[in-house]
Amino acid sequence: MTTKNHKLWGGRFEAGLAQWVEEFGASISFDQKLAEFDLKGSIAHASMLGKKGIISPEDAATIKAGLEDLLAEYKAGQLKFDVSNEDIHMNMESLLTAKIGPVAGKLHTARSRNDQVATDMHLYLKAKLDEVIEKLANLRAILVDLADKHVHTIMPGYTHLQHAQPISFGHHLMAYYNMFTRDSERFVFNLKHTDLSPLGAAALAGTTFPIDREMTAQLMGFAEPYSNSLDAVSDRDFILEFLANASILMMHMSRMCEEIISWCSHEYQFVTLSDTFSTGSSIMPQKKNPDMAELIRGKSGRVYANLFGLLTVMKSLPLAYNKDLQEDKEGMFDTAETITVALDILTGMLSSMTVNATHMAESTEKDFSNATELADYLASKGLPFRQAHEIVGQLVLECTKKGIYLQDVPLTRYQEISNLIGQDIYETLKSHTAVERRRSLGGTGFEQVKWQIAEAKKAL
Amino acid sequence: MTTKNHKLWGGRFEAGLAQWVEEFGASISFDQKLAEFDLKGSIAHASMLGKKGIISPEDAATIKAGLEDLLAEYKAGQLKFDVSNEDIHMNMESLLTAKIGPVAGKLHTARSRNDQVATDMHLYLKAKLDEVIEKLANLRAILVDLADKHVHTIMPGYTHLQHAQPISFGHHLMAYYNMFTRDSERFVFNLKHTDLSPLGAAALAGTTFPIDREMTAQLMGFAEPYSNSLDAVSDRDFILEFLANASILMMHMSRMCEEIISWCSHEYQFVTLSDTFSTGSSIMPQKKNPDMAELIRGKSGRVYANLFGLLTVMKSLPLAYNKDLQEDKEGMFDTAETITVALDILTGMLSSMTVNATHMAESTEKDFSNATELADYLASKGLPFRQAHEIVGQLVLECTKKGIYLQDVPLTRYQEISNLIGQDIYETLKSHTAVERRRSLGGTGFEQVKWQIAEAKKAL
Amino acid sequence: MTTKNHKLWGGRFEAGLAQWVEEFGASISFDQKLAEFDLKGSIAHASMLGKKGIISPEDAATIKAGLEDLLAEYKAGQLKFDVSNEDIHMNMESLLTAKIGPVAGKLHTARSRNDQVATDMHLYLKAKLDEVIEKLANLRAILVDLADKHVHTIMPGYTHLQHAQPISFGHHLMAYYNMFTRDSERFVFNLKHTDLSPLGAAALAGTTFPIDREMTAQLMGFAEPYSNSLDAVSDRDFILEFLANASILMMHMSRMCEEIISWCSHEYQFVTLSDTFSTGSSIMPQKKNPDMAELIRGKSGRVYANLFGLLTVMKSLPLAYNKDLQEDKEGMFDTAETITVALDILTGMLSSMTVNATHMAESTEKDFSNATELADYLASKGLPFRQAHEIVGQLVLECTKKGIYLQDVPLTRYQEISNLIGQDIYETLKSHTAVERRRSLGGTGFEQVKWQIAEAKKAL
Amino acid sequence: MTTKNHKLWGGRFEAGLAQWVEEFGASISFDQKLAEFDLKGSIAHASMLGKKGIISPEDAATIKAGLEDLLAEYKAGQLKFDVSNEDIHMNMESLLTAKIGPVAGKLHTARSRNDQVATDMHLYLKAKLDEVIEKLANLRAILVDLADKHVHTIMPGYTHLQHAQPISFGHHLMAYYNMFTRDSERFVFNLKHTDLSPLGAAALAGTTFPIDREMTAQLMGFAEPYSNSLDAVSDRDFILEFLANASILMMHMSRMCEEIISWCSHEYQFVTLSDTFSTGSSIMPQKKNPDMAELIRGKSGRVYANLFGLLTVMKSLPLAYNKDLQEDKEGMFDTAETITVALDILTGMLSSMTVNATHMAESTEKDFSNATELADYLASKGLPFRQAHEIVGQLVLECTKKGIYLQDVPLTRYQEISNLIGQDIYETLKSHTAVERRRSLGGTGFEQVKWQIAEAKKAL
Repeated sequence: MTTKNHKLWGGRFEAGLAQWVEEFGASISFDQKLAEFDLKGSIAHASMLGKKGIISPEDAATIKAGLEDLLAEYKAGQLKFDVSNEDIHMNMESLLTAKIGPVAGKLHTARSRNDQVATDMHLYLKAKLDEVIEKLANLRAILVDLADKHVHTIMPGYTHLQHAQPISFGHHLMAYYNMFTRDSERFVFNLKHTDLSPLGAAALAGTTFPIDREMTAQLMGFAEPYSNSLDAVSDRDFILEFLANASILMMHMSRMCEEIISWCSHEYQFVTLSDTFSTGSSIMPQKKNPDMAELIRGKSGRVYANLFGLLTVMKSLPLAYNKDLQEDKEGMFDTAETITVALDILTGMLSSMTVNATHMAESTEKDFSNATELADYLASKGLPFRQAHEIVGQLVLECTKKGIYLQDVPLTRYQEISNLIGQDIYETLKSHTAVERRRSLGGTGFEQVKWQIAEAKKAL
Repeated sequence: MTTKNHKLWGGRFEAGLAQWVEEFGASISFDQKLAEFDLKGSIAHASMLGKKGIISPEDAATIKAGLEDLLAEYKAGQLKFDVSNEDIHMNMESLLTAKIGPVAGKLHTARSRNDQVATDMHLYLKAKLDEVIEKLANLRAILVDLADKHVHTIMPGYTHLQHAQPISFGHHLMAYYNMFTRDSERFVFNLKHTDLSPLGAAALAGTTFPIDREMTAQLMGFAEPYSNSLDAVSDRDFILEFLANASILMMHMSRMCEEIISWCSHEYQFVTLSDTFSTGSSIMPQKKNPDMAELIRGKSGRVYANLFGLLTVMKSLPLAYNKDLQEDKEGMFDTAETITVALDILTGMLSSMTVNATHMAESTEKDFSNATELADYLASKGLPFRQAHEIVGQLVLECTKKGIYLQDVPLTRYQEISNLIGQDIYETLKSHTAVERRRSLGGTGFEQVKWQIAEAKKAL
Repeated sequence: MTTKNHKLWGGRFEAGLAQWVEEFGASISFDQKLAEFDLKGSIAHASMLGKKGIISPEDAATIKAGLEDLLAEYKAGQLKFDVSNEDIHMNMESLLTAKIGPVAGKLHTARSRNDQVATDMHLYLKAKLDEVIEKLANLRAILVDLADKHVHTIMPGYTHLQHAQPISFGHHLMAYYNMFTRDSERFVFNLKHTDLSPLGAAALAGTTFPIDREMTAQLMGFAEPYSNSLDAVSDRDFILEFLANASILMMHMSRMCEEIISWCSHEYQFVTLSDTFSTGSSIMPQKKNPDMAELIRGKSGRVYANLFGLLTVMKSLPLAYNKDLQEDKEGMFDTAETITVALDILTGMLSSMTVNATHMAESTEKDFSNATELADYLASKGLPFRQAHEIVGQLVLECTKKGIYLQDVPLTRYQEISNLIGQDIYETLKSHTAVERRRSLGGTGFEQVKWQIAEAKKAL
Repeated sequence: MTTKNHKLWGGRFEAGLAQWVEEFGASISFDQKLAEFDLKGSIAHASMLGKKGIISPEDAATIKAGLEDLLAEYKAGQLKFDVSNEDIHMNMESLLTAKIGPVAGKLHTARSRNDQVATDMHLYLKAKLDEVIEKLANLRAILVDLADKHVHTIMPGYTHLQHAQPISFGHHLMAYYNMFTRDSERFVFNLKHTDLSPLGAAALAGTTFPIDREMTAQLMGFAEPYSNSLDAVSDRDFILEFLANASILMMHMSRMCEEIISWCSHEYQFVTLSDTFSTGSSIMPQKKNPDMAELIRGKSGRVYANLFGLLTVMKSLPLAYNKDLQEDKEGMFDTAETITVALDILTGMLSSMTVNATHMAESTEKDFSNATELADYLASKGLPFRQAHEIVGQLVLECTKKGIYLQDVPLTRYQEISNLIGQDIYETLKSHTAVERRRSLGGTGFEQVKWQIAEAKKAL
């Protein structure tokens, strides 16, 4: 029932762990994603130990050579990990011992798994943040390109999912550009608390060996070491920031995908997705489903969950390291993989989507989205806005009963309603006019949209 | 860049899916956990199609034989799934086609992946619920046994983590027994909405074929079919109930583990865990860490997260099936696996743990946890409880300043305080007396604890 | 800076609490919702104390009379609570003391705030559960009535928000009926763990006074007392069950509201909400917004949050009472109030909504939602379903390019495609036929919908 | 049943809202917290309208005077709000109309409630962020002061809640200093996306009036206007960032409070809280409960919940404004109030807490927390660390069986174990030595802790 206790920390223990208990505690099934980073951290550590004379230069050289071999083997897909070695660190130590013998045991001088795993996580996330920021830049670039093509494409602007006022489709896209720009800024800020080296914090209290933490930090490419060893091993803020930023990003993507799904529907028909980003039905031969957009929307649940999972884990944990912290990994990996692919999918979906510009524009011609134009028209001629609003509201009701729109109301009727109204009202009520005239800064007026696009191009 | 479109629903499509897009949408990496249930559902469906003459008896027999072969191969670990076949259903259909030829295509008559996947999930969860209920019964039995041994073991009862009143350790354990009993009742109730067959709901609306849903429900061992086809394919209540129940269970386990972790600490030393459920440190040779208890506590985060993930996914999804629903699976699998192992670990940890009964009892002798005894003593002699409480509060403060306890206060001082106090106060102040005299129903008095244990044994 | 320490538990303390600290700890601003239940619990407790001779019958009578006066004053809106009295229990004790003098101090014999507040919460939730179950019954009844009116109203059935197959609107409504029926069953089960009396558990361990917990349980209308005193004061399962059930309910309501919001849009125009359940815009005079549906959808966030909040609070709390548990109240109150009003609003919205049945039906005439009919037609004539599916998929693509629908394809072309197709295909392709022929149990066929409605009427 | 429809947007509506429906939709009960900000935003808007000639200078002056009167009345606590006026904006407009007549109606020219409420929220949060950052600075300063006093106070350092290695209490406190410093940095970053003016975005699309958004932004003290009007009215990132930052902050506070609660317990007795931050029990006269620490720990649930609530609300909301967004307010207010008070409480608790330094230090003398010293001693003499670890582990086991500690092992026995061990081992095993010698950067060595403190003092 129990395996022989060959664990490297086993001196204190008389009985071995039952295997199924061992498997519950083991993390090697997922923390092997850290393999490359673990090796890089060990190489830096061995270099420093040798340089500072904590181990002999010869031992350091032997260890480094062994680690570099393992790195090469890892990249070639040749390393095999074993669940009985619990985690990535123990697996690597076993592999190194097999390769270079007992001198491998000197590598663990002046460090602990607590600072080692924290180091791996910082290295992993730092690499992923760069990737996410780059993918966000691609998405933002596609949005700007698409907006540029559709400055003059008119669509209904919605509030409460009701037609509100006609807007430029380019303007609509630029709203998303701004969201993703803020996302990018958040991930950049996230680097600040990620780009720190915990190595040398040891178990929790630092070490009596004369290590050089600045050297290892530099060798691994970190900005600087953590300044407090307890903090270094128990801090997971950098991951929580990442999960929070990823959650807000997924929220933005879920909003955009919700719109794309509606736009693909029979009722809207505003866009057509490329076949690459659609799937069919096993029973209904006509179906062309916006599966990818639905899946991104659905995956917001998973990313939110990863954030809440880790917040729950961390709640009221005493210092310093507790095994609960092992639960920090899967959610981080899953989130990083989810958002990087989702960003690619959304970018691809947008760049291959067909926009039915005419249909979009027409759908603003048979509605009351020009009602504000009439109210503003009256207000600009001196009527208090509240009275103008009241008058137009009553006229909309009158039209609805008659089955006509504001552009169909004869001038005689307009002038009965208010002698402020003249023939120019019909031009005012056109969608194109309505959009063009919204020239306030950041408004949907064509020139404003062009300005936004120009600014975005400069920023990218 | 795109794979040839060999998908079974591909008639409508001109271009294939890019492979990485395909992988994003594919679920075969995780839904292969449904393999056995998918085959069982298909066998029931094929039997019914044959019986009702929707396909010929010969075709039905061929299909069933093929499916049973696949089931045997699956159990022998011989089936290979392919990500280009997207999900478990498509993989199975491919494997069946390879085995029996185009007649395999008749199996999908009168059903859709929408009702098929829902059927698989119901079968899976029904099996898992039985397993969870059984494991809970084991844990409850261990708790009752342990309580039985420790009816007379006295420990400090805590509120606000302060010593409050001495209690029976058996009583403390029975509090957890009650929590896990309620958990069990919730999982039993969970069966009600799980034990329903969606099969035959087809894509969303039922089918024109003369299927017999009661027959397939019966063949699969379900209580009855869903009565509304839209509901059948879009309902995930049974999973949400499971995730909510699992979250409450993990909350209970996290509370017990938090206590075990404290009890193992240098400061408490109330219990010693078996080596099987402890681990060491890579740097500190003396460490014997309650890792398994920490990990269970930490895994509450993961299970809560799975609940919130699915609640988020389901929020405001229109009827009927949407691809977002694919996100229902991983959280369910992960939760089922987490709680079944965690229950085993906790059961093993409790049954192998050493209780330091003497130390526990002694820790109630050097504290003020008998202060309520003195207040109740005064109240039982007619002093309004609020005045008794006030007097005792002041005496505790006086003792604290002198560095003594209530049992050390001389009778003369007691009688200065109140002439209601006699020599019998010293007996009253003993922990054993305090516990014994709490004879109110459900109280910590030894007879009450024995009664609880007897009732629990009857229930198990 | 500190108030005089007039707290009833003040004997132990030398310094008073600073007022702002006091306010942070005080719960009277929200727990006054428990006032009525607190008084009822106290009346039962006083009756029992008198009956059992723990206090004199005269004292018991004085206390009960005082409490009943307070109850009458409370109902008349005349009680004033004071934050310096911390919580509802201390406020009530102060008010009682002011009314009947120091004898009031005897009421707290043999109980603690820990069992008292738990008792109040059980009484509160028990009352609320009854209310929620009743409001759910109203909503379910309205759905059945509406379904009854719309058995023959045809609408597009959606999967992936794409037209999938035509269905009966009554069928669609009955899917929601089933969701709300499961909600109701969950709240009924919730009563089981709510209908328990914690009174007499005292601080955590029971009491040495000869109390009768069954008597107080009965006087308050509870099914039975908790059997373990530690459990009684630290259990919040009944609230977590409530919050989980409420979350699933809100999820269902958010789905229905999402659909209603879409149905009200310019693109769908399937329903028109009554003005009572709509609002306007301060700037756009034409707007008629489905605000109430949006707000219910939005309020799912609040209810989910209340569940997650309490799960977080409870995570890894040691036994027995901890002050953290005070955080159980606001979320419970907020949830109870949110769901009871939301249920009323949704019921009112549905019962006053106008259904544009003709428009709904017409939107199934100009789409490919009859493609499954053609595939099933071919399959029923012996073509393996997968081949039928493939053929129809190609035909849909051909039609899309020509801008026609399946019903527009001439028979000659059909017969080129397959000689299994005859003139009867045109009848088959009609929406009405498609719906009518889905006669499988629980399908959208008219007779099936009528059967569902009949069953529901029996159940209500 | 319905109130007369006196709503300002009522022209379009024939029937009034039922009162209870109205109350469900009304936000005045909570958004009155925005009153001051709403008035300030309106004053800026009126100034701009007058300056740009959109309304006459006289009208602008009248409106501004009226708004300033209202602001003075608000500050004097004299404004009364009315639920039938739905929200703070409508209430203010009503109050202004009552004061200055129909000219008040001109104030709403060129703006909408959508940009108005967003403006109010930005102003509110900007003010709160400043407050939070200041309170964090107070807390950090107290931590540095306390650390300064306790550089030489030795305590057990824990991992897995087991004694790991002795550390400086000052070092432990500085770990929290670092957490709260990161919190502060996050709130400073949060200002970036908060310090933006939405005013002038109008309903969603900007306006045809020649407004000057830069002027209003400047008048309100914002860095700049939003550059996209759709984004301006639908963006809630700044609130989500705040809620995420607040959640991480509460996580840190919950960790510290968990430790304080343990440290106050009978088992630890490391610290004694001031009476101001403790409370008693209604039944147990001896109790002195760390209620405030428990409550802060518990309130992490509420803050996490507010984050999750808003993430849920925002998930998959289409652009631009939807009524769901009204649900953004209560969670933000509640979070801001919770964290500001919790920061004050924690600061007060720490600054008034008594540290039992002798007791803390003594608890490191009777444990094995010096085991790493022995292993490092051996490793520094050339034994591979893994072998040293193994040897010490076996010795700890031997000591445990004999009931002695490493410092009690005679030199003869040490030299049997390894001839590398000399007399100096006894000095090495002392806690003070162990701490002092951990001189690695950021380690617990006294000089390192002093360095950390010096750096922190510079930063504050």
